[in-house]
Amino acid sequence: MSFIVQKYGGTSVGTAERIRNVATRVAESHRAGHRLVVVVSAMSGVTDGLLKLAREVSPEPSAREIDMLLSTGEQQTIALTAMALHSLGIKAVSLTGAQAGIITDRLHTKAKIANITPKKVFEYLDSGHVVIVAGFQGQNDDGHITTLGRGGSDLTAIAMAAALKADTCEIYTDVDGVYTADPRLVPTAKKIKEISYDEMLELASLGAKVMQARSVEFAKKFKVKFEVRSSFNHNPGTVITEEHAAMEDVVLRGVSLEKNQAKVTIIGVPDKPGVAAGLFSALAESGTNVDMIVQNVSAQGTTDLTFTINKDDLPSARKVIEAQAAQIGARNHTAQDGIAKLSVVGIGMRSHTGVAATLFSALAQAGINIQMISTSEIKISVIINESEGARATQVVHDAFKLGN
Amino acid sequence: MSFIVQKYGGTSVGTAERIRNVATRVAESHRAGHRLVVVVSAMSGVTDGLLKLAREVSPEPSAREIDMLLSTGEQQTIALTAMALHSLGIKAVSLTGAQAGIITDRLHTKAKIANITPKKVFEYLDSGHVVIVAGFQGQNDDGHITTLGRGGSDLTAIAMAAALKADTCEIYTDVDGVYTADPRLVPTAKKIKEISYDEMLELASLGAKVMQARSVEFAKKFKVKFEVRSSFNHNPGTVITEEHAAMEDVVLRGVSLEKNQAKVTIIGVPDKPGVAAGLFSALAESGTNVDMIVQNVSAQGTTDLTFTINKDDLPSARKVIEAQAAQIGARNHTAQDGIAKLSVVGIGMRSHTGVAATLFSALAQAGINIQMISTSEIKISVIINESEGARATQVVHDAFKLGN
Repeated sequence: MSFIVQKYGGTSVGTAERIRNVATRVAESHRAGHRLVVVVSAMSGVTDGLLKLAREVSPEPSAREIDMLLSTGEQQTIALTAMALHSLGIKAVSLTGAQAGIITDRLHTKAKIANITPKKVFEYLDSGHVVIVAGFQGQNDDGHITTLGRGGSDLTAIAMAAALKADTCEIYTDVDGVYTADPRLVPTAKKIKEISYDEMLELASLGAKVMQARSVEFAKKFKVKFEVRSSFNHNPGTVITEEHAAMEDVVLRGVSLEKNQAKVTIIGVPDKPGVAAGLFSALAESGTNVDMIVQNVSAQGTTDLTFTINKDDLPSARKVIEAQAAQIGARNHTAQDGIAKLSVVGIGMRSHTGVAATLFSALAQAGINIQMISTSEIKISVIINESEGARATQVVHDAFKLGN
Repeated sequence: MSFIVQKYGGTSVGTAERIRNVATRVAESHRAGHRLVVVVSAMSGVTDGLLKLAREVSPEPSAREIDMLLSTGEQQTIALTAMALHSLGIKAVSLTGAQAGIITDRLHTKAKIANITPKKVFEYLDSGHVVIVAGFQGQNDDGHITTLGRGGSDLTAIAMAAALKADTCEIYTDVDGVYTADPRLVPTAKKIKEISYDEMLELASLGAKVMQARSVEFAKKFKVKFEVRSSFNHNPGTVITEEHAAMEDVVLRGVSLEKNQAKVTIIGVPDKPGVAAGLFSALAESGTNVDMIVQNVSAQGTTDLTFTINKDDLPSARKVIEAQAAQIGARNHTAQDGIAKLSVVGIGMRSHTGVAATLFSALAQAGINIQMISTSEIKISVIINESEGARATQVVHDAFKLGN
């Protein structure tokens, strides 16, 4: 008998039939003797429908009222899931985030979990119930309903697993795990059996859309081992866990490709303290997320500064860049979209030499030009033309023999 | 400056546009300097949609989970209404039933309000907010969400008005008041300016679908004066208040017609104690609501027992009646639908003589046969053929000069 927290996402509970399917899976686990807490998201489409209504009544709906509105989506799913379990003869009860004891800070629409006092959850578990908890929501210390922002239901599941000291946490979604590369780009991509928090974090922040980075960070902080798997089949998924020695035997865990990037270069920037700080503060204030930054060595008192941003942010960022370039007395600036970021990730990189060399020569042999390079302890990222992204991913995946 | 509780029903908040319309009305009252609590229902159609989903996941959904599910409907409306008020520049805040301090008993799907501790409501009112409260819902002393059953939002409004000691309570709906007769049957029907709780109760239990009787009973008990009016125009509505002397000057307040009735007669019932008790207990257990009961004087040790029920209950009631008639040794029984109940209501009846005579002769002159008669202190009801219902209503309305 294990103590398991399961989480089912919006697609997995998207229709009455799928909720019944989830109930059947939960019932199987319950009948196998496991102690179960089930976290569910809003049915897919419900949240978007509510946001549409909100925009119809108000151009700028307040964050508190958005939380009051959106939290109803998960509340509907918990009730329906409990009903579906009842009809299978399983004792089950639904709890809102507040009822489950999830206390957050006061930052509406992107609240952080402050603490969990799961008294009711334990009471119901002890009396033989499956406990269904609304994902994505909590209540602050003043009794207001809050929501946790994007990926919030994963966060609820991992936080509940930590607070309850569950044995494991299963994140059910519409993909059946984390792959060595996007299988749509690389047909030989393989599902990864086990991956460390740090590797998952790099992949999560790199366009592998399985999970938001904040949930992985939370799991790492509280050492919650979890598995990402599909609710539509019974295949084993990918286990995300603490790093252990055997993990380093693998040189690379995977390759990821992030499209829709843009590159900005500011030419002839006076090489004096505070220039970069001013520019990037202004960009941050305008809501532009800057990713890679490269600064060339200074020549004749000026330097060139290049950085990447999301392509969608380019129009709004352009105004800031123009004003800043003029203010700091830069000679010129250029902006270019149509680029992509290819990254290789693996904690094996720390103990294996030659990863960068293999990467660069694989791309060179395929005639793919590298425009920028950025490295971290367990990741190397390069900027290439977006049009060559798919081919580059395949070439790199082959070079590191990730399909074997 | 008054302290007003307003309540808007599902049709009044049925679309984003109508919610904006409600917000405009509320904003007018707010700008006029009134202290405002606004109770709203679920958007029309939402509750039915949720019940449909519930039946798709479970043939017999549990009452607790139905409450968890349905309470989301009102929660959505409060958030949207608050947003709409914000966009008009009005300070407003939404509160769920639980947040507004509405504590109920534990009877899910038809909970009774036990008490209200409106601390938060007063805090927000004192800081200049319009407070939007979810109708139809509360929470029991164990922290479970409950709902109040049919007409529950009216009940919330009246109970809030009582607990807050508001000056008045305005129930906005899709009709603009209570009429002397159904205007679709009687074109000369007039809107009633003022009516006593008891008269409203008789009309509410008689097919005037403006309000559920329990809300009126609650208002009577706590002496809450309220007004029923339309959210689609600015016409004055009907005020429901405590009886006062001037009300007796009017002989009759109105005429109502209840269709879809059926009449059952049990012939040759042995005239001994306990017979009626057994029959009506069995009917009550089968869920059949018995309305008028008439027993003729006993002749030769047997009597005839006639009663009316809703036509829709006839098939299920028939089985009970057959079994009971056999058991008590009745000679025979008959059941007939296609009848209607016409009632005249008015506290003036107590001090005016000849009401029954006027009623009976008006019907006689029109050639309409009276099949059963039942009277209370402020009401006379007669059973007639349903096909003659509309004409009878007009004739009686004329006879009492209610259109003048």
